[in-house]
Amino acid sequence: MPDLPFDTTDPRLAAAAWTRVAEPGDPVAGALRARLGAGAALEWLGHVRRSGRSSPAVPPGGTLQEDGVTVLEWDKAVARWLPRLEDLDIRRELSMLDAVGGRLLLPGDAEWPAALADLAERAPAALWVRGHGRLDRPRPAVAIVGMRASTGYGETIAAQLAIELAERGVVVVSGGAYGIDAAAHRGALSADGLTWAVLAGGVDRLYPAGNTRLLEAVMEEGVVLAEPAPGSSPGRHRFLERNRLIAALGRVCVVVEAGWRSGALNTAKHAEELLRPVAAVPGPVTSMASAGCHRLLRDHGAVCVTDAADVLELLAPSGEDLAPDRPVQPGLLDGLDPLGSRVLDALPARSAASLGSLARAAGLSEREVRAGIGRLELTGHVERSGAGWRRSRGPA
Amino acid sequence: MPDLPFDTTDPRLAAAAWTRVAEPGDPVAGALRARLGAGAALEWLGHVRRSGRSSPAVPPGGTLQEDGVTVLEWDKAVARWLPRLEDLDIRRELSMLDAVGGRLLLPGDAEWPAALADLAERAPAALWVRGHGRLDRPRPAVAIVGMRASTGYGETIAAQLAIELAERGVVVVSGGAYGIDAAAHRGALSADGLTWAVLAGGVDRLYPAGNTRLLEAVMEEGVVLAEPAPGSSPGRHRFLERNRLIAALGRVCVVVEAGWRSGALNTAKHAEELLRPVAAVPGPVTSMASAGCHRLLRDHGAVCVTDAADVLELLAPSGEDLAPDRPVQPGLLDGLDPLGSRVLDALPARSAASLGSLARAAGLSEREVRAGIGRLELTGHVERSGAGWRRSRGPA
Repeated sequence: MPDLPFDTTDPRLAAAAWTRVAEPGDPVAGALRARLGAGAALEWLGHVRRSGRSSPAVPPGGTLQEDGVTVLEWDKAVARWLPRLEDLDIRRELSMLDAVGGRLLLPGDAEWPAALADLAERAPAALWVRGHGRLDRPRPAVAIVGMRASTGYGETIAAQLAIELAERGVVVVSGGAYGIDAAAHRGALSADGLTWAVLAGGVDRLYPAGNTRLLEAVMEEGVVLAEPAPGSSPGRHRFLERNRLIAALGRVCVVVEAGWRSGALNTAKHAEELLRPVAAVPGPVTSMASAGCHRLLRDHGAVCVTDAADVLELLAPSGEDLAPDRPVQPGLLDGLDPLGSRVLDALPARSAASLGSLARAAGLSEREVRAGIGRLELTGHVERSGAGWRRSRGPA
Repeated sequence: MPDLPFDTTDPRLAAAAWTRVAEPGDPVAGALRARLGAGAALEWLGHVRRSGRSSPAVPPGGTLQEDGVTVLEWDKAVARWLPRLEDLDIRRELSMLDAVGGRLLLPGDAEWPAALADLAERAPAALWVRGHGRLDRPRPAVAIVGMRASTGYGETIAAQLAIELAERGVVVVSGGAYGIDAAAHRGALSADGLTWAVLAGGVDRLYPAGNTRLLEAVMEEGVVLAEPAPGSSPGRHRFLERNRLIAALGRVCVVVEAGWRSGALNTAKHAEELLRPVAAVPGPVTSMASAGCHRLLRDHGAVCVTDAADVLELLAPSGEDLAPDRPVQPGLLDGLDPLGSRVLDALPARSAASLGSLARAAGLSEREVRAGIGRLELTGHVERSGAGWRRSRGPA
């Protein structure tokens, strides 16, 4: 069999090739690249292909303790990858990327998002990127995700969250899908903010087609990115692995609306595994579009968020002081102190009362009544009436 | 000054008297009764009254370590209580109770609810009770509370929760107020279940007047109870202490709708202090009537509940197996196993594909594709087509 038709010693070509050889999130591929480097890893794979797989295929170095990959796993992985070598010429995908004015990002590139390091061996071999924005913006990013079959309620909340977060300089990350994703992207754009869309298929084809305009708008200031090479079709498995990138790129994951089985819950699961705070927006318990959010709140320790301030508080611990100053929240009762309220309650509606009768009515000592009545007089709730006191006629 | 006009050695008269001498939840009164007993405590108070309070008043036994009441607290408490002795004749309130066919309950009585023991020194000296029900029903009780200015959404949910809980033999405890309270009582009644209403004022006057019919219906099978003696008016302080009884009587506290300052949050606070699970029903984040519930979920570790089954699960740990069998929840994806879904995704929409091309497309080994395709054939998703496979024409 012929060797690979491109120069596997070119790190860019080699890394790009791995986005075609292995499916997103393939941990064995990550372990192999970590051990040999993308180029040498391809070389070895080509060698196995030429020599045939008589004995189990294990890369140079054998089964190391640290990569924790068994002989069987190595062999099964090779069996997964070899078929992909048949027609592999990554220069084709790179020219498809050039055709749409995109760029390839490698780990180590200045623009490579540091947050992806948390994915360890499941980090992408490379990213296919389009758009005028940069992924290395020194800004916090928040993932806002939800179901496609969203309600007007969910879309309104998603857009509002995105607007307020974008106004605070937060990058809104989502999946470019219909429903909540689109509402989040639109919200960020309407606030002239930054937003990133992570696709499950190649960036050459903006998917879904109905969101082409929206994704083009995202690319004006932000980026559209994907792990699979151009020409790759989005599939269920790729959607699920795409979700891990959304979860990794966001420092917080906010689920706005999700059905009981929504893929948004999968994004939340990835965020949880990556130790990112997971937040859920509650909704009517009668709305199936909120069932997944309530499930996250009930069973997965998600944080209940109702506005952007709640989300910013989840970001704050990691440095920035982005949370707006919340107004001081009123107590469970109105401004009256307990003593004052007890004395006021004891005052008859219309007639006046003496200190003694107030003490009996309120169950307080006369000294306590004097203290309470004094404050109530200051606040204008009561006024003197002969030897006693009465409720003020004027509004307190 | 004359002695008290009634026989303070009669335990019932003495205990009843304390519900007039001290305000609900007065911990010093509880400590005094615990030390001397209700009767002797009154006697001592009468003695202090006769002899005047020159030196700080401390009961026989001085300031004991265990009751943790300081000299100053004893003296201040006495100053609170003495004014109440002026016109004290509890026989009057007892005759008011007789007039409405009520009964007085004392700690130690067979019907005394054991749950109140958790209130320790803040437990009531006695309870004034009306209704054909009994407070010692061997059934679990759940508190369902919420704001008066509730929405149709909240009232519907409260009623539905009460109906389903009552159908499972759970007693619904609430405060008899307008809004959520009333909806909870009505729900339980509509299911021919038991419900208890805890009032903030005397049981001689069913409050609020607009709920008289409802409270009369509650008394047919359940009870209306209060800590303050008949003739006592409901005041803010008494509402707050009434809430502690609701929290104590319920094994779980469910807040259905609560504004940011709603008194229902005070009930939840009492429940939290009593180590009762606090549950909150979420609602639209745009509804101020749910702001308090979301606050409980976000800041106070309340459990998010969306139906009666969720509430029953909170009851279950303490013994009964009340929770209905939940249907097995579907996974985040449909029935397809990951392997099957990856193979199916790789199959072209209309044309057939070989094992080899499927392996390349899916990023799987041919052996894995064979395994996956086998299951897909069994489930009717795919069918053989010449040397390859295609998606089934019939519905899977």
